Amino acid sequence: MKKFKAAIVGYGNIGKYVLEAIEAAPDFEVAGVIRRNPNDIPNELKGYAVVDNITKLENVDVAVLATPTRSVESFAKEILAMGINTVDSYDIHGGIVDLRRSLEKVAKANNSVAVISAGWDPGSDSVVRALLEAMVPKGITYTNFGPGMSMGHTVAVKAIKGVKAALSMTIPVGTGIHRRMVYIEVENGYDFKDVAAAIKADDYFAHDETHVMQVECVENLLDMGHGVNLVRKGVSGKTQNQLIEFDMKINNPALTAQILIAAARASFKQQPGAYTLIEMPVIDMIYGEKEELIRRLV
Amino acid sequence: MKKFKAAIVGYGNIGKYVLEAIEAAPDFEVAGVIRRNPNDIPNELKGYAVVDNITKLENVDVAVLATPTRSVESFAKEILAMGINTVDSYDIHGGIVDLRRSLEKVAKANNSVAVISAGWDPGSDSVVRALLEAMVPKGITYTNFGPGMSMGHTVAVKAIKGVKAALSMTIPVGTGIHRRMVYIEVENGYDFKDVAAAIKADDYFAHDETHVMQVECVENLLDMGHGVNLVRKGVSGKTQNQLIEFDMKINNPALTAQILIAAARASFKQQPGAYTLIEMPVIDMIYGEKEELIRRLV
Repeated sequence: MKKFKAAIVGYGNIGKYVLEAIEAAPDFEVAGVIRRNPNDIPNELKGYAVVDNITKLENVDVAVLATPTRSVESFAKEILAMGINTVDSYDIHGGIVDLRRSLEKVAKANNSVAVISAGWDPGSDSVVRALLEAMVPKGITYTNFGPGMSMGHTVAVKAIKGVKAALSMTIPVGTGIHRRMVYIEVENGYDFKDVAAAIKADDYFAHDETHVMQVECVENLLDMGHGVNLVRKGVSGKTQNQLIEFDMKINNPALTAQILIAAARASFKQQPGAYTLIEMPVIDMIYGEKEELIRRLV
Repeated sequence: MKKFKAAIVGYGNIGKYVLEAIEAAPDFEVAGVIRRNPNDIPNELKGYAVVDNITKLENVDVAVLATPTRSVESFAKEILAMGINTVDSYDIHGGIVDLRRSLEKVAKANNSVAVISAGWDPGSDSVVRALLEAMVPKGITYTNFGPGMSMGHTVAVKAIKGVKAALSMTIPVGTGIHRRMVYIEVENGYDFKDVAAAIKADDYFAHDETHVMQVECVENLLDMGHGVNLVRKGVSGKTQNQLIEFDMKINNPALTAQILIAAARASFKQQPGAYTLIEMPVIDMIYGEKEELIRRLV
């Protein structure tokens, strides 16, 4: 069987799990890893090509962008223009439509496919939200995140003066409202109370219930577990009180990486263009023969 | 706006809710109702054409088959051959692949689209099962049904000698195992104990924990509420213990009808052929402009 050759672009937290997901997938193989410093080769990459530019790899079918969200667009455009498919987990909800338009143009012009925002939110949660709206067209969906570490909020805390190390946990309190539990180490010469007040006044935290706690060692608290409770109550036809709920407790980067690989698989079944997960048949994301999958899953 | 004209084929329990779902959908209108006795016209059908054959209706875009599962194939073939799309909630899991093959042939030959098994199981549950497998490729999915009335089991009980009226409830006891709670009225001249023993010996019940109870009036127990708890625990990439759960408590025929209409909407976006829900993009099932849906749901 010919396997899809996937390049991993960026080798941080997500990239490491993408490597595992590719190694575990029966229909994929690693084409190589692209990182800024190609001489930094950890043990698990010893058997693979590690380069600083995708042009140095051969026969790449798809590039899995495990870069920071803000650099997704430029990497994707460059790679799509080479006729190589891309998948990313771009996660700025307000920017998805624009990213899609921008990549759609390049992909169509170069006969390639971009699957965007293919993590768990946006991503698999989006598929669930869309399915719930098809089932129950009237009503309200609440997406409750956590408990789990918020990358964005953690970065925001770290930017505040006097913070030496930080962790911001997202705690769901229902109806899409979240509590922020912030754990910090304080720099020498700063007063915890002042730093805590500055965090609570920051725009990232000012609108939510926020608790700041001082700890000896943030590192000891870090855990990549995360969760979601997605709930919709509404109306099917003219019938009220239809109740649906989706729950998960997962390793965050491991799930993101797995969905990226599923999206990469699906990319080969789409026409040139850019797609979010709700625009592709779910079956395209799964390994296996079509009728066998229908027999087993439908 | 041009609305899709949908004919309702069969006007039992599901058909009544299909009518409501069409009336509630902004992009659909009722083309007419097909029933064996077109002179039987309840109040809510007074404004619509009620006929005994779909050929007597004009400009039908899609036929919603609200017939018994066993007659889906023959109705669908006849209607697809007229170039009209069909949707059904065919629910015999072992027969889906064959039905799909059979309808695919007719649909392709006549430039029409069949969406099959578009209820909630098979149907929306199938989409969830497929999505869960994309997210967590290794592991076990359990589909736990109920509490709710099982049509198939209720019919099986009614076929047993001495049963005057019956209701078989499906009770989930976890890991895909179900208890059967059977409520019956006993015919004059029969002994409850004998009838109960016959039910428990029936192949429909012999393999499950089954309790049979005698009641005064089965009619007073009937409720169309139903539920599902769909749970998967497994591995993303090489990471164990990924936990995902999907739960719902719903009015059974109302949800089935709503999904049929969502599937009908999606049928107009597919190439000629036959499709299960996992083979179509979820976004195609929802009313609205594409970029607006992406902005709101992804």
